[in-house]
This record gives sequence, C-alpha cells and structure tokens, in this order.
Amino acid sequence: MTPDEQAIRDLIAAWNRATAAGDAGPLLGLMAEDVVFLTPGQPPMRGREAFMAGFQAALKRFRISPESEVQELQVMGDWAYCWTHIAVTMTPINGGAAARRSGNTLTILRKQSDGRWVIFRDANMLTADARAA
Amino acid sequence: MTPDEQAIRDLIAAWNRATAAGDAGPLLGLMAEDVVFLTPGQPPMRGREAFMAGFQAALKRFRISPESEVQELQVMGDWAYCWTHIAVTMTPINGGAAARRSGNTLTILRKQSDGRWVIFRDANMLTADARAA
Repeated sequence: MTPDEQAIRDLIAAWNRATAAGDAGPLLGLMAEDVVFLTPGQPPMRGREAFMAGFQAALKRFRISPESEVQELQVMGDWAYCWTHIAVTMTPINGGAAARRSGNTLTILRKQSDGRWVIFRDANMLTADARAA
Repeated sequence: MTPDEQAIRDLIAAWNRATAAGDAGPLLGLMAEDVVFLTPGQPPMRGREAFMAGFQAALKRFRISPESEVQELQVMGDWAYCWTHIAVTMTPINGGAAARRSGNTLTILRKQSDGRWVIFRDANMLTADARAA
C-alpha cells in the first residue's frame, strides 16, 4: 500500500471514529471547504459548513455507528476515488428503535497543497434496510 | 475546453443519442469491459454485458428520452470524473403513462490505451419524480 492509499484509509477510519464518538469537530479537517455531497432525491449539499450543521443536528438526536469497507481505492496523482460499502446504525438517544442504512458511496478525494487528503465530492447511495438493526 | 474534455462530452452526447434512438449497440464501446454501475438499494452491476442485457430489455418496453447537463468535469491524466444532472423520461411502448426520473450521477471515466475514453464507475442517484412527465 502506498503512503497516499494509507492516508486515505486513515481518513476514512478517522471519520468513522469521530462519528462513533459523537464528535463532529474532527470531520471539518477531512473535507474540502467546497465539498459537495450528492444523495438521491435531494439537491446537492454544498460546502462543509452546511454538512457540519446537518451533522451536528443529527448527533443531538442519534448515536451513530458506522462500519465501512473499502471496495476499491485508486490514486491518480493528487486525486483519488474510493468506492466504499457503508452500513450505519442510528440509535435515537431518547429511546426508540434503531434504524440501519446501508449501501455504496463513490467519493472523489483531493490532496491539498499542504499534503493532506480531503473529501471533495461524495455520491451517497445508502438506503434504509428493511429489517431493524 | 481541452481535447479530453471534448471527448468526454462527446461520449455523453453519443450515449444519449443512442439511448433516444433505442439503439443499444453504440453504448458497448462507451463502457469499460469491467465497468461497475452503483445505484441505491441494489447490488453493484458489474460488467458491460450485464448492463447491455438490462438495457436491451428496457428498450423493448420503453422509449427512453434522456437529457443531461454536465455540472462538473475534471480530467486527471488518463482518468476523469464527471458530475452530471440527468432527467430521463420513459414512455411505455405499449401505452400507459410516461414516468420521469431525475437526479445526479458521479462517473469515473478512464482513457484506454487506444486513446478512447470509457465509463469505468458510475454512481446513479436518480429517483422517480413526483409529478408525471
């Protein structure tokens, strides 16, 4: 594994660790300022501030447990793409049934001028699982 | 616009033209043999033969009218990604109401050793529109 591949896998692990800990702060440094998140049935979410606002609201309501498995990771100079299979369990903090969503993501990453990799574009195709978690 | 960008836009136009004409044949040369199509709620569709079988079955039942608008196109050497907004109207050949699907795609393209660009990975986030076409 090349240092770039390792750095991107570390980014994904750091993202999941911060999410599971309910700590949005570390996510800020893992996204480009002008990141775009694409999802089915919604307009594009543009910019990391918009993401952080939505994520912090979710963390007030849910404990979020992500698991991800990299299916493919391709570095192309200062760019990369990563196909990941993700399963997320969301447990309401105030009680109630946990919900599980799973599916694939296709992510474009970019190596910034400071040498850090960040998420630049993300296509999220997760759907609600039929069975409860 | 660079020649690579023009070639990728030409690929998208050729894809739409063949689709609208109900002629699946030209699509074969626009995909990598080991292309993967990712969609919400379905396992990955692997390989252009699998895609062609599904597409030819759809063409027997529907007249398909695609419109696409490139939102972003980034060439990275022999790789590229393209974010596209797509709207597809599917009109049953045997009568019945047309259905419209729209949304974003995020596509990884690759320049083959023969110099031709092909679709390599595709994340399709189209959903059914609430209103009829």
